[in-house]
Amino acid sequence: MQSWVDGHPAHALASLKDRGLAYGDGLFETVAVKAGQPLLLDLHLQRLANGCSRLAIAADQSLIRCELLAYAQAMGEGVLKLILTRGDSLRGYGVSPGAQPRRILQAGPAAAYPEANALQGIELFDCATRLAEQPLLAGLKHLNRLEQVIARSEWQDPTYAEGLMRDTSGRIIEGVFSNLFLVRDGVLVTADLQRCGVAGVMRAALLVEAERLAIPFHVTDISLEQLQQADELFVCNSVYGVWPVRAFADLSWPVGPLTRKLQSIARTLLDV
Amino acid sequence: MQSWVDGHPAHALASLKDRGLAYGDGLFETVAVKAGQPLLLDLHLQRLANGCSRLAIAADQSLIRCELLAYAQAMGEGVLKLILTRGDSLRGYGVSPGAQPRRILQAGPAAAYPEANALQGIELFDCATRLAEQPLLAGLKHLNRLEQVIARSEWQDPTYAEGLMRDTSGRIIEGVFSNLFLVRDGVLVTADLQRCGVAGVMRAALLVEAERLAIPFHVTDISLEQLQQADELFVCNSVYGVWPVRAFADLSWPVGPLTRKLQSIARTLLDV
Repeated sequence: MQSWVDGHPAHALASLKDRGLAYGDGLFETVAVKAGQPLLLDLHLQRLANGCSRLAIAADQSLIRCELLAYAQAMGEGVLKLILTRGDSLRGYGVSPGAQPRRILQAGPAAAYPEANALQGIELFDCATRLAEQPLLAGLKHLNRLEQVIARSEWQDPTYAEGLMRDTSGRIIEGVFSNLFLVRDGVLVTADLQRCGVAGVMRAALLVEAERLAIPFHVTDISLEQLQQADELFVCNSVYGVWPVRAFADLSWPVGPLTRKLQSIARTLLDV
Repeated sequence: MQSWVDGHPAHALASLKDRGLAYGDGLFETVAVKAGQPLLLDLHLQRLANGCSRLAIAADQSLIRCELLAYAQAMGEGVLKLILTRGDSLRGYGVSPGAQPRRILQAGPAAAYPEANALQGIELFDCATRLAEQPLLAGLKHLNRLEQVIARSEWQDPTYAEGLMRDTSGRIIEGVFSNLFLVRDGVLVTADLQRCGVAGVMRAALLVEAERLAIPFHVTDISLEQLQQADELFVCNSVYGVWPVRAFADLSWPVGPLTRKLQSIARTLLDV
């Protein structure tokens, strides 16, 4: 399906002056679409609106919702990518007073990951690339993603479905394209994303579900020691749901009951 | 003058899948052009080649040189911007085996800064935005520039021609679009850019000149205390040359002799 730029079918960016291209000055969302419905839409739009607010990008949020719904309807099924940039720039980092945010919608096929990832769990690659600590950008799904590009380039071996990233202080943060949860004594733990990391939509959805089901959880800093002592480990995102983690470096975990429970919840959230 | 994409006149990006747009996955150079000549060309191309090597972008460096020379010739005068991206992507951070780096050349008018910046010197805004420490990206002029965008948005008051940026540990690093030098007891000092910052082409050129003229210099970490004790302070880049710094926060400096000397050298480097 053809892409849309600002609501119109297009196969090219209208302008080479776009600040998304020049500076990565914008945000994105990757949304699973089924039966014409964008899944977890409210959480995607909440994160986007929060990103716009923090980066001071004055985008029309209800227009974005409208367009996303219409585009998903036209797509039917697959993965929808929304890129929202701050619009065009004159020269320099300063924002031109007339800059109009630009919306780009792209359609891709449904994700085709090996079924074994969800069933037997995955092995995590140990990424040497560390996440820099930048509270001003932490949590946002912005377009400055060189750290993820470099981290993903560290391995080609398909043994590893994902890679584990630490921050420059050694804290365990997330996967390259996933968030990470561990389970210890029945308590769900995921990394605090105040300094770095992307606050994933599935992570947010699972925290809401944990709250609802009275599963105790902590959002906190995670050390390598805590990872070693975890009873269960899993990664998640809003496209594939939940993958149990069986192994990382010389550590291994069984696929545990809380992982399976949350995997089943994620499956429901990604269904229509 | 019209932009070129991969050597052909174009006013739009050929593809919405470009990784420069998606992830800021690329590099750029901003080159002053006079009488059809790109100035400080070798240093610009050296930095670009170094960036390509560190980010593993397999671009044809001699083709880039050729195109840059031809484009500058056609421009005559102004500021040339080269954006080099890793090319198109399929979904995800991983690089598609067939990805071809994309070259984008854009022409802008010559910089029109107030003459007073160079003559009387400037006042630096005190940016609250700190640079995150990421050795893997430090020094590169890559397309992940949200920190600069946020820092530049901190002030609108034209009293400040530039802003001073520290890293998250408080070290003095650079301006938003300039590098910084201080002079203390006849010694030139500029920040070590192993953790963050952009290794500017004018900074590199001035260090070469300092070496040639036997002006002692240090590339090292700079603390606020060292700034306070400096005899002279200036910022530089490859478009405007050298601007003395007269004031920053409650500090002030005279425009000193070494600043004037290097300013005059920069002026020569930016002439044909």
